[in-house]
Amino acid sequence: MNKIRQEKLECKDDKRIEQFLSETRTGYLGLTDGEVPYVVPLNFVMMKEAVYFHGAAHGRKIDLIHSNPNCCFTVSEDYGTMVSPIPAKTDTAYFSVMLFGVLEVVTDLNEATAAMQAILDKYVPGYYHNSLSQAHIEKYRSSLGSHTLVYRLVPSVHTAKENPLNPQLAFYSGRKVDMDI
Amino acid sequence: MNKIRQEKLECKDDKRIEQFLSETRTGYLGLTDGEVPYVVPLNFVMMKEAVYFHGAAHGRKIDLIHSNPNCCFTVSEDYGTMVSPIPAKTDTAYFSVMLFGVLEVVTDLNEATAAMQAILDKYVPGYYHNSLSQAHIEKYRSSLGSHTLVYRLVPSVHTAKENPLNPQLAFYSGRKVDMDI
Repeated sequence: MNKIRQEKLECKDDKRIEQFLSETRTGYLGLTDGEVPYVVPLNFVMMKEAVYFHGAAHGRKIDLIHSNPNCCFTVSEDYGTMVSPIPAKTDTAYFSVMLFGVLEVVTDLNEATAAMQAILDKYVPGYYHNSLSQAHIEKYRSSLGSHTLVYRLVPSVHTAKENPLNPQLAFYSGRKVDMDI
Repeated sequence: MNKIRQEKLECKDDKRIEQFLSETRTGYLGLTDGEVPYVVPLNFVMMKEAVYFHGAAHGRKIDLIHSNPNCCFTVSEDYGTMVSPIPAKTDTAYFSVMLFGVLEVVTDLNEATAAMQAILDKYVPGYYHNSLSQAHIEKYRSSLGSHTLVYRLVPSVHTAKENPLNPQLAFYSGRKVDMDI
């Protein structure tokens, strides 16, 4: 694993990383199609240090995962642009996490049901009075009529970077300045 | 190129795609590190049907680009969760674009200056009274002190998908329902 180039931006606080992943709605799953990368946005949930998401049992994503299950799952939030009269110092505030590992299809029905329930708990908390049943997961089908699979990524490596608000800079508000170059 | 599996979600309106790319702040650049994908979030700008972004002249990203310049650049917005008493119909509203092609380093100083100006115009519109000069771009250095490169992606293939608000569903508001399964 390469080291993060900008070491001062590295976040090693696993509690904060976990909190960030639990709150962020979209992750970007990177796969390979031979020499060509493929990046698809997904809803996901963290459960017991693994990432879970679901998808159709047919299509390009599952074909690529079967050919090469190595993935990079990147989750990032952009908190806005910080400005300076020096253009090179105009900068974005962000938090981002990269998870690397091998994707697996969840075959255990208990685990798949728990993951689907965790996805509902994350995206529509409190919406359903009752919990998902295993019988429901068994017959769960996507809107296309094809079976839905649940995938699990247990990251073997993770890195996180944070570029926090710099107190010497301001957030962009539209006020004009002369460029200082 | 594979066809989009859910053809009914495909967006072929290039004007809307261009508008979406011009408004969205973050793109996810997918690269490969041998068999392992690598996905990095970036600020970017569209200019004359090409994507431009900048980055340090040293580090993992540029090493990977030199080894394999094939990329997938994915830009997506999540517009919220739509709910239904049937959990399988609970769904995310989104617009997403994937651009595929070969990355190049911009060596022409006019083009690099125009791209950096376009990035400022996108992220801090009207902030600077004056425009970037070529002399400034020549000495432009990242906050780490290493030279900054400007990259260009002229997409050879693009696909876009839209899952619009379904008028038969509601946005998630926290109201409870019984699961209809």
